[in-house]
Amino acid sequence: MSPTRRQARLTRLREFELLQSLPRRFSTQGLHPIVGIGDDAAVLPSATSQQVVISTDLLVEDIHFSRKTATMYDIGYKAAAANLSDIAAMGAIPTAIFVAIALPPSFIEEDWPEFYRGLAVPCKPFKVQLLGGDTSSSPTSLFIAITIMGQVAPGHFLTRHGAKNGDLIYVSGTLGDSTAGLAYLNQFKRPPKSAIRSKPMKYLVQRHLQPTARVVLGELLASQPYASAAIDLSDGLSGDLKHLCRHSQVGALIYSEQIPMSQQMQHYAKRIRATPLHWSLHGGEDYELLFTIPPKWQHELEKVAKKRRLPITQIGVIQPQRFGVRIEHSDHTRHVLPQRSYEHFSP
Amino acid sequence: MSPTRRQARLTRLREFELLQSLPRRFSTQGLHPIVGIGDDAAVLPSATSQQVVISTDLLVEDIHFSRKTATMYDIGYKAAAANLSDIAAMGAIPTAIFVAIALPPSFIEEDWPEFYRGLAVPCKPFKVQLLGGDTSSSPTSLFIAITIMGQVAPGHFLTRHGAKNGDLIYVSGTLGDSTAGLAYLNQFKRPPKSAIRSKPMKYLVQRHLQPTARVVLGELLASQPYASAAIDLSDGLSGDLKHLCRHSQVGALIYSEQIPMSQQMQHYAKRIRATPLHWSLHGGEDYELLFTIPPKWQHELEKVAKKRRLPITQIGVIQPQRFGVRIEHSDHTRHVLPQRSYEHFSP
Repeated sequence: MSPTRRQARLTRLREFELLQSLPRRFSTQGLHPIVGIGDDAAVLPSATSQQVVISTDLLVEDIHFSRKTATMYDIGYKAAAANLSDIAAMGAIPTAIFVAIALPPSFIEEDWPEFYRGLAVPCKPFKVQLLGGDTSSSPTSLFIAITIMGQVAPGHFLTRHGAKNGDLIYVSGTLGDSTAGLAYLNQFKRPPKSAIRSKPMKYLVQRHLQPTARVVLGELLASQPYASAAIDLSDGLSGDLKHLCRHSQVGALIYSEQIPMSQQMQHYAKRIRATPLHWSLHGGEDYELLFTIPPKWQHELEKVAKKRRLPITQIGVIQPQRFGVRIEHSDHTRHVLPQRSYEHFSP
Repeated sequence: MSPTRRQARLTRLREFELLQSLPRRFSTQGLHPIVGIGDDAAVLPSATSQQVVISTDLLVEDIHFSRKTATMYDIGYKAAAANLSDIAAMGAIPTAIFVAIALPPSFIEEDWPEFYRGLAVPCKPFKVQLLGGDTSSSPTSLFIAITIMGQVAPGHFLTRHGAKNGDLIYVSGTLGDSTAGLAYLNQFKRPPKSAIRSKPMKYLVQRHLQPTARVVLGELLASQPYASAAIDLSDGLSGDLKHLCRHSQVGALIYSEQIPMSQQMQHYAKRIRATPLHWSLHGGEDYELLFTIPPKWQHELEKVAKKRRLPITQIGVIQPQRFGVRIEHSDHTRHVLPQRSYEHFSP
């Protein structure tokens, strides 16, 4: 392709042409739409035995991501993962996505299929279909808004408001990895991903750019009577635990020593004189699940999770609302959990 | 409110606070969500006898609207109307919307409720509920993505692909008004709406800023076996007729003399030496419906439409695909209908 064509700007490309050129990377299995992409709207079959779960997420360039640290493939991948994570937090099975995207003049023709290539990857295992969207030029930044739909058996969903005093607080995976990956990437002026040779750094960068939504765990938690409440960790543990507590009208005590952290994150934090606990408490975009369960389910859930290789860790116990949200350190001192909301990507 | 507070920028306002402060202007009747706004996702009841219709629309500042010509109320109003129009074009009944909005630093605190106040107005008659969304700061432009849901009785929806050779082509309302209103507004540097005294100009500006989605007509067309295909006129008649023909694999002949134009638009076009026919053929954002019906339904549909005061006009006849898309003028000359895609707001 000639340099001129390479730099051809997408602003004048018609939406129809864009949609036509879209690689057929999305599943055509799963949900059977009656009208799919390309009409004024999609039409879905009536799902007699299922409830519809729906969520919208917004990703803005230089707020949620930067093209300095992420390729268009990464941006698509993460956009899908962030949305799948909302569905996971409801304990639902994702079925379809709708993508609205505004493309700035700096967008080149190759970026388009790269974005969709990335978007399709986390969708594929769940047979999530791309059923619609809208495309526009943007005078400035790249904007992406994704609406995702899922389904649950009636009543079998998780919300933020069911946690009760005495319930155990769990998280999946390890926390702070995404922030560590971002701290590393922020040194660069262009996405360095393919050039990163160190395995631990590759891991952390992967955790930041291509997080895994905990759809399987969410489904498990909702299909059994295990979880009383759940939320996905997009803003960081401190912020999201407070969201969950506010919705459930409870307090919480978490133990700093029990917060799961990866070796890779801890080593890298030490190297750049950052505090691992700080990253794991306040770092966002891990897209792990934070959930609560009544103590009677602890043994059974841990057994099932182990069998299904779903990493979960108890980090605390729900308290009465007047207790507030506190953290206990290894020396048994307790402090109010400081709130420091995650600011996503800050340029 | 002090000038300092007036100018307080919204960028740091938390999404939760924004949602909490949202005026309760939306219907709480209609659909009964099981989980509403504020959780990771909304949960809708299983609709045993209805099919779900869903569409996403994107509005970008200085592409689709300008804060020079529209207030935040207008922007909200039109965002809702544009989305309702997609649902109308499917013949569905709108039920719920989800709003993703990225707010630039120039956004002031008062803008927020104004946007939602405008958004709620076209939603109210149909009991459309606001069920979720996402809010973010934006480094530059205001960006709005709306996902709208609706419902139809199984099979009773309209698509772009059912038009057959010999079907009659109809449009609702009058065409080109929105473009005339925009042409007038483009002279100003600030939204002049409330200061416009001339009734014809008020009408045209209203048609541009606060269009009416043809939900009632769409529902009528889909509930009876009248319409073979439908599309809403967002890009302009020339572009959208071609979309419909392409999807239906047919051609079309329209008659320039039959295209419905308002007196106000024709007078204003004359005044500024613009061509009314050009505006009505290529002007976008009228949000009228373009639809086709088999000739046998003509009499009954026109009778019902008249009774229900739904203005519809036959403008042409569907042809075989090889005929292409043509326009016949008053002197009986026929030309290929030129395509000139509407560029929304061009700064």
